[in-house]
Amino acid sequence: MPIARAVRIEKPGGPEVLKIDRVPVDDPGPGEILVEVAAAGLNRADLLQRRGAYPAPPGYPADVPGLEYAGKVAAVGSRVTRWKAGDRVMGIVGGGAMATHLTVHEREALPVPEDLALTHAAAIPEAFLTAFDAIFAQAGLVAGEALLVHAVASGVGTAALQLARRAGAQVIGTSRTEAKLERCAELGLADALHVTDGRFAEATRALTAGRGADVLLDVVGGPYLEENLEALADRGRMVVIGLMGGRSAELPLGALLRRRLTVRGSVLRARPLEEKAALAQRFTREVVPAFAPGGGLAPVVDDVLPMSEIQAAHERMERNETFGKIVLEWS
Amino acid sequence: MPIARAVRIEKPGGPEVLKIDRVPVDDPGPGEILVEVAAAGLNRADLLQRRGAYPAPPGYPADVPGLEYAGKVAAVGSRVTRWKAGDRVMGIVGGGAMATHLTVHEREALPVPEDLALTHAAAIPEAFLTAFDAIFAQAGLVAGEALLVHAVASGVGTAALQLARRAGAQVIGTSRTEAKLERCAELGLADALHVTDGRFAEATRALTAGRGADVLLDVVGGPYLEENLEALADRGRMVVIGLMGGRSAELPLGALLRRRLTVRGSVLRARPLEEKAALAQRFTREVVPAFAPGGGLAPVVDDVLPMSEIQAAHERMERNETFGKIVLEWS
Repeated sequence: MPIARAVRIEKPGGPEVLKIDRVPVDDPGPGEILVEVAAAGLNRADLLQRRGAYPAPPGYPADVPGLEYAGKVAAVGSRVTRWKAGDRVMGIVGGGAMATHLTVHEREALPVPEDLALTHAAAIPEAFLTAFDAIFAQAGLVAGEALLVHAVASGVGTAALQLARRAGAQVIGTSRTEAKLERCAELGLADALHVTDGRFAEATRALTAGRGADVLLDVVGGPYLEENLEALADRGRMVVIGLMGGRSAELPLGALLRRRLTVRGSVLRARPLEEKAALAQRFTREVVPAFAPGGGLAPVVDDVLPMSEIQAAHERMERNETFGKIVLEWS
Repeated sequence: MPIARAVRIEKPGGPEVLKIDRVPVDDPGPGEILVEVAAAGLNRADLLQRRGAYPAPPGYPADVPGLEYAGKVAAVGSRVTRWKAGDRVMGIVGGGAMATHLTVHEREALPVPEDLALTHAAAIPEAFLTAFDAIFAQAGLVAGEALLVHAVASGVGTAALQLARRAGAQVIGTSRTEAKLERCAELGLADALHVTDGRFAEATRALTAGRGADVLLDVVGGPYLEENLEALADRGRMVVIGLMGGRSAELPLGALLRRRLTVRGSVLRARPLEEKAALAQRFTREVVPAFAPGGGLAPVVDDVLPMSEIQAAHERMERNETFGKIVLEWS
């Protein structure tokens, strides 16, 4: 059994509980590959897990955080047909990505496009798979529809913005920070809403000829629920992928019924292998090629830090000052 | 312009405001047919409309109730290709079905199977189209899944029961009246839940090997919302088509997200022509043939009354003692 270096959560707590330690890694079994991880993206879920609020699903290490990685195939198990040693791969996992080595099923891994640095590839999987799955697979966004994205400057937000524009949809993005909206304009955000009082439905309608948003990607949860439904067009679909603002709210069923609205919750982390593999295969076909130069998609990277600075990385994310992903790199 | 006899709501109020009166009917325009109505099913929405709580959508008479009809084609407009005078048809409308004559678009009308009396056909459209649309088109129920139906003894409930069993799904039905569940057993309900205290999630899990219901058809609304989500399997889809119990309730977003649940509102009445026509065409292909003898589907008719007894019919429905539809027949 190989030994990896990894970020370990010694006990629930602040950034100071994160230590670089040695952990065992599973040998790749049938259909699996051992990845030598070059870099891993930092996610808000890592912060929650560190505080003890978001335990890893069964089958993943409880004390090693990390939901996405990019690296090279170091070894392949039996019956592996898709990869060989040296291939560059990236992907999401239920945990354990902040380690030098990681075992995943070959059908969960995505190819890293040529010309893309592994430190940038590490910023792709969680944000782009989450956004792609939510707005297309879950909500069925199509060309000509309007997408409303909250926290559009976040990793998932900037991914949704790029994916939806590429699909021919109108994108309306909200943020509480005006400077972040200006950065999003550089990524093609035409309809920016600076929201400071939780009101955006009227502005959304004004930007959509009175119709409202066909699809809404929400990370706020409770406090926005009623206003979210108000911002939706008839037959609008809202996908909730985060609850940064609160876990419950009054649902106006009358409006839901009369306007035929859909509210769906979604999370990638705890999905079974077959669903993650199906999503990875579809993403490989439909999205990965567009990360090639001129393809129209690019990960948004705030900074690349050495993995030894994982504590500082958590602190930076908690201050909410980043634009795009913080990536941690092994040296 | 032809003149029809029709039930008219003189002003909002009790059953006594319903009168048989004469009303004008539109001549059939291009693509439209004039139907001589033989019978019309009574729906809870008619009671709401009579009380002034559920106005007809634009394009339908404000004062003539009736959401479903069965009859014969009396005349066809220009460019009609699907029907000829004398053909037996049934269908849903946004209002005005409690009249001797009715003009509809030819693509909204459904054929009445041979051997089925028009008084029985009149009990099909609203219940079966609503159930079919909700559990298949909206919620994607497939063979092997479990469907939980509240008020299973209602018109929509008995339709959902029959349609879902025919599709190879397990059906769990609730009712507050034990005698009605016994009647549903005759229609093939194997898993009946007599619910008197608003609790059914644990029993639903017990009937589904712990998994919960994949699809839930709800007419209760607010008071059941939390228990409904609890009764759903992971990735479960709930369609709300009625709010008999209340219009709003706390939505536990944490469970929605973690278990990837969907809550959707749906209503047929105010849909645009293209959607009603698309549903009618799909229903004609997939469902109507099964109303032929031995086909496995049958409307559930509580009683057939002459249209002149419309006041008594409303009173009976309000007492909530019916099993299946009350049909009103013109003489």
